[in-house]
Amino acid sequence: MKRNTENNVIKGTAACIAVGSELLSDAKLDLNSLEITRVLEMYGFDVVEKRVVGDIIERIAASVRELLDGCEVVIVTGGLGPTADDVTREGVALALGRDLRHDAEVEGWLKERYEKVGRTMPEIGRSMAMVVEGSEVIRNAAGSAPGILVEEDGRLLVVFPGVPWEMRSMIESHLKARLEQRHDGTIRGSRTLLIGGVVESEVEGRIRHIYDRFGRDNVTILASFGALRLVLTATGAEAQVEQDLDRMEKAFREILGDDVAGIDISGLAYAVVPALVASGQTVATAESCTGGLVGAALTDVSGSSDAYMGGVVSYSNRAKEEMVGVPHDVLVEHGAVSEPVARAMAEGVRNRFGTDWGLGVTGIAGPSGGTDEKPVGLVHCAVAGPQGVIARHRVFPGDRSIVRQWSVNGVLDMLRRQLISQS
Amino acid sequence: MKRNTENNVIKGTAACIAVGSELLSDAKLDLNSLEITRVLEMYGFDVVEKRVVGDIIERIAASVRELLDGCEVVIVTGGLGPTADDVTREGVALALGRDLRHDAEVEGWLKERYEKVGRTMPEIGRSMAMVVEGSEVIRNAAGSAPGILVEEDGRLLVVFPGVPWEMRSMIESHLKARLEQRHDGTIRGSRTLLIGGVVESEVEGRIRHIYDRFGRDNVTILASFGALRLVLTATGAEAQVEQDLDRMEKAFREILGDDVAGIDISGLAYAVVPALVASGQTVATAESCTGGLVGAALTDVSGSSDAYMGGVVSYSNRAKEEMVGVPHDVLVEHGAVSEPVARAMAEGVRNRFGTDWGLGVTGIAGPSGGTDEKPVGLVHCAVAGPQGVIARHRVFPGDRSIVRQWSVNGVLDMLRRQLISQS
Repeated sequence: MKRNTENNVIKGTAACIAVGSELLSDAKLDLNSLEITRVLEMYGFDVVEKRVVGDIIERIAASVRELLDGCEVVIVTGGLGPTADDVTREGVALALGRDLRHDAEVEGWLKERYEKVGRTMPEIGRSMAMVVEGSEVIRNAAGSAPGILVEEDGRLLVVFPGVPWEMRSMIESHLKARLEQRHDGTIRGSRTLLIGGVVESEVEGRIRHIYDRFGRDNVTILASFGALRLVLTATGAEAQVEQDLDRMEKAFREILGDDVAGIDISGLAYAVVPALVASGQTVATAESCTGGLVGAALTDVSGSSDAYMGGVVSYSNRAKEEMVGVPHDVLVEHGAVSEPVARAMAEGVRNRFGTDWGLGVTGIAGPSGGTDEKPVGLVHCAVAGPQGVIARHRVFPGDRSIVRQWSVNGVLDMLRRQLISQS
Repeated sequence: MKRNTENNVIKGTAACIAVGSELLSDAKLDLNSLEITRVLEMYGFDVVEKRVVGDIIERIAASVRELLDGCEVVIVTGGLGPTADDVTREGVALALGRDLRHDAEVEGWLKERYEKVGRTMPEIGRSMAMVVEGSEVIRNAAGSAPGILVEEDGRLLVVFPGVPWEMRSMIESHLKARLEQRHDGTIRGSRTLLIGGVVESEVEGRIRHIYDRFGRDNVTILASFGALRLVLTATGAEAQVEQDLDRMEKAFREILGDDVAGIDISGLAYAVVPALVASGQTVATAESCTGGLVGAALTDVSGSSDAYMGGVVSYSNRAKEEMVGVPHDVLVEHGAVSEPVARAMAEGVRNRFGTDWGLGVTGIAGPSGGTDEKPVGLVHCAVAGPQGVIARHRVFPGDRSIVRQWSVNGVLDMLRRQLISQS
């Protein structure tokens, strides 16, 4: 990245603005910027700031102005529709000090579009035919509101509708080509190592010391509950980036060994299912506190039917006995949340489904149901396999949904490690 | 909202800044601002802008300055930790034109905190004892990094750590009291109607015409897959807000009737489980394409063990036969994805678990497995109950995970309507 002092632009920097008061509520998030970020990074651009602003002309104008002062590329989404609260056109015109003018050709496109879906353009639709003086109009192939594109003083300003598929179609038709032109061959590539293992602070401690070797900005840890993500990034020419990422991956693998469940996979099930399929093995699940989440995780993987035969959600004790075959005495003696029950669930479901592996999970997800001896968060996991049954337990921190997530990752990681040690 | 021209503050306006380069990647989102927004709205503040900025002193400073110019309250989160890329303290000091100074008392707190968790404060920990001149230091009850609070010229600037529970504890201990002081009795309240029913465009069409009666900004539709959310908001004195929301709720309920599954609930299971518990009834599930997601949704509700006895993930045909009791002939004649099989699953699981209700779901979630006759997205749902079995099918649009989500909501909504018609 080099500063071009003449017009105060830092080459290779980009920013996003999402316009829409609804995106400022506590119920909705700007997700468009994630897609835009992906595209920008593909062409070596670094997103340095993101904003969400309401449907207010002055605020939109201020944000566009502030971000164009420094960034090479500014992408705005939303507020291009026909209603009174769609004022992004006005905000952009104000930021650039330009006028809006009615464009007959654009009105023609709009009328055509409305006719195509069997409607007549309403009078308010005409507002979408107002264009910013001196800008390029991006025709909307997937909807009505046109986009706006301005290139000036070494900067690129693009405005997309907020509707995701309309935005996407304009990213393909216009944005990528403009980014490609500005692209100096430098890209920003990334690779994500999924780390299985429930003790995340420990993993962090082990890898912290090699952060610096690759630059702190190039390694990000995203902790979730029992499945940590290590995002490695590198910037440079495409071939160089691949080499750098290979080198980084190798360094982390040397430290983490079998803790690395996979590369660029979205969950531990995406390591477990292919390993099972590759070795022609099958699995079944018996779940209590997770209530079906382990099965859901496994079946999230397309093609999982070759490895996952099914399972039982044995939420009640009766289901544990009748559907999984947990002995009544074991339940009475140890209680539903206990290692013997977890073991019996894993073994029982393995037998009932005739699979190579059986998983058992029983615990107290909370918020109620905890005791001094068996607190909320206590979860017993067991894996039954060709060589017998292993079991582990832990008291997981967090609320009900977090305890459940820990449990899913915990039992899947146990199976994952069993499969590795077997091969 | 009234403008106080003396110091350029618009009373009742607020803004959030999340600091952290990782929040600018395509893999992570600023979620803290959602919680902060909820609190701000409780005290009548209107969030007019949100930003995410990287760990760069000048960018943090510019955002704080720009947002304090106009907003009464600015909340910053993140970048208060001890590492080199935690530079929020420096950014805030720069924005305010103040110095940072070392504070011995704060260092004492930090050392105490480290000792409490059995560690010695590392040398870099001292950076957290640097405080902004003339600010209040917020002690961190849930972690180490202290927060920052500045009140000046009618404005409030608060800086929290990015760790959610640390932020939450400071919201409780400091933010709420300060907002309460500034609170003029006007609040912004909201109420969310959860709408069950799979055809969302149809629901939208029915309610669109009453948007205007309540002001477009006050009604937001959030569509997800088979469970639509209608967010109603009102602004004013607390009693007035309640009245307005009652009036709005009534108007929408008149149109939507039984389509309204509940108020301020996070999913259809939160309507179904209480209805079952209240009437002393129980349910069991037999799932194929959803792989455990229906069970997971039901058991997401704390206390669901009173109503949900468990289920079978009958992913394989063998499991459908042996574990649920689907007749072999029915499977052979109609195929696993068929109405007769869905019915047999619902009935079978009801019998096996001895419950009042049984749910059956079988479908093709894709991306593979579709045929001309049975395309990807085809899902059969069945509900078996005291009066017999009902079944429905639909071809859901979307990818694998979306088809699964539609299916979960579809079958839960069928049960919900059965429970209503029964009562």
